[in-house]
Amino acid sequence: MAKLLYEGKAKQVYETENPDEYMIHYKDDATAGNGVKHDQFEGKGVLNNTISCIIFDMLEEAGIKTHMIKKLNDRDILVKKVEIFPLEVIIRNITTGSFCKRLGAPEGVVLDEPIFEMSYKNDDYGDPLINDDHAVALKLATREELAYIKETTLKINELLKEFFLKFNLKLVDFKIEFGKTADGEILLADEISPDSCRLWDVETNQKYDKDVFRQDIGDLIETYKAVLARMQSK
Amino acid sequence: MAKLLYEGKAKQVYETENPDEYMIHYKDDATAGNGVKHDQFEGKGVLNNTISCIIFDMLEEAGIKTHMIKKLNDRDILVKKVEIFPLEVIIRNITTGSFCKRLGAPEGVVLDEPIFEMSYKNDDYGDPLINDDHAVALKLATREELAYIKETTLKINELLKEFFLKFNLKLVDFKIEFGKTADGEILLADEISPDSCRLWDVETNQKYDKDVFRQDIGDLIETYKAVLARMQSK
Repeated sequence: MAKLLYEGKAKQVYETENPDEYMIHYKDDATAGNGVKHDQFEGKGVLNNTISCIIFDMLEEAGIKTHMIKKLNDRDILVKKVEIFPLEVIIRNITTGSFCKRLGAPEGVVLDEPIFEMSYKNDDYGDPLINDDHAVALKLATREELAYIKETTLKINELLKEFFLKFNLKLVDFKIEFGKTADGEILLADEISPDSCRLWDVETNQKYDKDVFRQDIGDLIETYKAVLARMQSK
Repeated sequence: MAKLLYEGKAKQVYETENPDEYMIHYKDDATAGNGVKHDQFEGKGVLNNTISCIIFDMLEEAGIKTHMIKKLNDRDILVKKVEIFPLEVIIRNITTGSFCKRLGAPEGVVLDEPIFEMSYKNDDYGDPLINDDHAVALKLATREELAYIKETTLKINELLKEFFLKFNLKLVDFKIEFGKTADGEILLADEISPDSCRLWDVETNQKYDKDVFRQDIGDLIETYKAVLARMQSK
């Protein structure tokens, strides 16, 4: 049986017979507020895996290097083995969430240019915001790696914005993660789903993401199903 | 009588007869933890004004543009009128304080290169850390202004490190502020003193700064007097 290497809030990572490959398994758990709020939603893992695979395929076709090898089944994907940078890489196109809460800034402002920010992935310290100098001092990544991550993230933002707009969804903000192979290649890793993106309907600003769970304003499964249905509509 | 324009925790700013000039008056107050801890120390204002004037003179001579026009008396200086950027501009040469607390990083590590960081000066939100994108989005400064501020701050760090080392003090970290004249010229403003710098004895690492007040580990006035005495010793 495959050895469990790491269990996160919504996914598990397993060893495979190939030392350069991992298997990722999507669970049905949802958490918010750094794990303070926690629930299970039957079918969430399948939805996120399906949505994320469609997006990773799109990004790969557009020239973004990702960890994705192939989808194995509804809940499992095969990926290249990477060491994840302990960074939450965030883009904001419209103000909301922690940006407004931390800085007292108004909600829903469409930004002239995207905000790029990074948090140090560290649950004990609440994933604190950091800048490049902090990341280098903490030896989380080199300056060159950070420059590549930033450049790639801005490209991904443009691709994702255009992608979701086809389905009448505004990409408000998102969080991604990067990893490094044994050869030092930097790949987009983790997932891209309504767990990690804020998506608002273009006309109504209705929320199509994990905020329905965070804020108790809708049914998570129905919401994620609606995102997938839109993505499969064209 | 001069009109009081602004009262901060440790200083007051007054109008003067010249519309391009302000007078700054140093008070004896000391605060810590965003004003939670507050006390008065007779003579503190005189010490900080004296120390800061010596440092601003040194920086001016080294080519740094500052708000300083002249010292008027023990507690008052005449400065160019600037609008202060709502930014706390911070350099760290050795890890301590909020850097370690926020990120769980070890204390007292001498950094390979200085950390530059900025906080949004906003008491209601606890002066939150921001990056350049946040500052631009909040319209606190333009990208060009931020680039000038960073470049100048790194120069000031080199000058201050060398300056304090002559007096057997290590410059651990410091906070400065910048302002802009009506003509758009960016000037170093505020003060540079043991209120705004962490200074450790080169041999013993004894603290010669406001941490003696924050941490109740020494007499503030005696400590600041000792800093001034070292600065006047050569």
